[in-house]
Amino acid sequence: MTSDPGAVGAARFPEGALARFSINQRTVKQLSLPELAEECGRLGITGVGLWREPVQEYGVEKAARLVRDAGLEVTSLCRGGFFTESDPDGRRRALDDNRAALDEAATLGTGTLVLVSGGLPEGSRDLAGARERVAEALAELGPYARERGVRLAVEPLHPMFASDRCVVSTLAQALDLAERFPADEVGVVVDTYHLWWDDRAPEQIARAGAGGRIAAFQLADWITPLPEGVLLGRGQLGDGCVDLRGFRELADAAGHEGPVEVEIFNEDLWARDGAEVLAETAERYVRHALD
Amino acid sequence: MTSDPGAVGAARFPEGALARFSINQRTVKQLSLPELAEECGRLGITGVGLWREPVQEYGVEKAARLVRDAGLEVTSLCRGGFFTESDPDGRRRALDDNRAALDEAATLGTGTLVLVSGGLPEGSRDLAGARERVAEALAELGPYARERGVRLAVEPLHPMFASDRCVVSTLAQALDLAERFPADEVGVVVDTYHLWWDDRAPEQIARAGAGGRIAAFQLADWITPLPEGVLLGRGQLGDGCVDLRGFRELADAAGHEGPVEVEIFNEDLWARDGAEVLAETAERYVRHALD
Repeated sequence: MTSDPGAVGAARFPEGALARFSINQRTVKQLSLPELAEECGRLGITGVGLWREPVQEYGVEKAARLVRDAGLEVTSLCRGGFFTESDPDGRRRALDDNRAALDEAATLGTGTLVLVSGGLPEGSRDLAGARERVAEALAELGPYARERGVRLAVEPLHPMFASDRCVVSTLAQALDLAERFPADEVGVVVDTYHLWWDDRAPEQIARAGAGGRIAAFQLADWITPLPEGVLLGRGQLGDGCVDLRGFRELADAAGHEGPVEVEIFNEDLWARDGAEVLAETAERYVRHALD
Repeated sequence: MTSDPGAVGAARFPEGALARFSINQRTVKQLSLPELAEECGRLGITGVGLWREPVQEYGVEKAARLVRDAGLEVTSLCRGGFFTESDPDGRRRALDDNRAALDEAATLGTGTLVLVSGGLPEGSRDLAGARERVAEALAELGPYARERGVRLAVEPLHPMFASDRCVVSTLAQALDLAERFPADEVGVVVDTYHLWWDDRAPEQIARAGAGGRIAAFQLADWITPLPEGVLLGRGQLGDGCVDLRGFRELADAAGHEGPVEVEIFNEDLWARDGAEVLAETAERYVRHALD
């Protein structure tokens, strides 16, 4: 589908339509943090999901002031995790890095650190063992997170990432992990891009909601063909085959009242004007995810 | 990993090591049917999985004679399916084509027609509806298949194919579909490439075996990065992270005594000498899947 910036620019969002909308920074990574804050202000967007690297580059304290002064809520920080290394040095480094990420999340004022668990170590075929190391890391980090008022949010990633990025592939698995810990220490991320294909997703979203485990709810659409490496193949809302409204309704029905964050990694979107993509994304959200 | 044709050519397979081994024709599609039959004879391979297009090109009756004369068992025919069209004309064409595929399977003397269910119709977001149309097609084709001594084998494909190729993404889903019908009409395909990531796979393989539903058991390895379009990204046995031996043991424990078919779609393998790839594949099977 082609974009229609004219129509987007002219869009009038109905009163309150963007009340729960949050833009994940990576969706419009061509915008600097000050540009992002300014464009959010212009459009009436009040939530942003941030990424550690651009925040560190800008300065964590400075970024915290910027978003606070702009009246923006930081709905999540991406990302911690990568817990599956089996050698002790690698594991210690990963835990240290996650403590730093929790500090940064606290400074930014967000209660959610998104975790991408990590893939299989080089040469390993032991998925169950790797998943167990994720649980061990959660046990170690949970109290540190709680002290800072930040929740560890285990994100199941699409099974196509199981070997190289995340051994937690379904919401059921993420909940099996999270439920070993108190709900205010460990939650889960419900992301339509990763879960849309799973016929168990509806029941698992209900389970996540009932247990107070939905730490973040994210939207992206599924489009094909997937690009080489598959990481940057996410679709703009409405361009693909995910029933976004249906998933938003499932999350709502499960008791999720928090932000709905849009996180899309897509080279075509990154090649365009960031302000235009942001406005388009908000418009697509209203059209495809709201009532 | 690099291949070592010298070592492969010199390999002596232990007595009986290839007794259950079957080579899916697509793995070495650079070989013509007569070349494939000849190379199988040379290596002591007694099972082949065939594909409709090259068989049709060669002539179905002629292919049946060729494999019979070569002492080869046809372990499966790929593929029928593509049942998810919603318009009546498309559905009728799909059913007609599947009846033709069942006739071809019977002529070739195989009891297994592998089904790739089909993806979402253009513009559709209704996964559940598409899955229901698969069930309707199975109901319609079941008796026709049974009369010909051929079983419909529902293959769950990796969730990354859910939108464009196969709305049946897990073995549990495939069994939910198959179990609506008699076990001699509808079975399932257990393929490590599609199922390796799923923590429910072991219990579902046991379920499939207990119900007499394992119509085919196939091996391929999982490697990354995935290529554009992801279809041709399968790995040679041993090159990736799948516990092939573990899966073969699970299938055995579930009562599967039939062929172990290797089906790999990989441009690099296709670019090489077909006889060399066939020998390498047999050697990898012995090394990575046998006791």
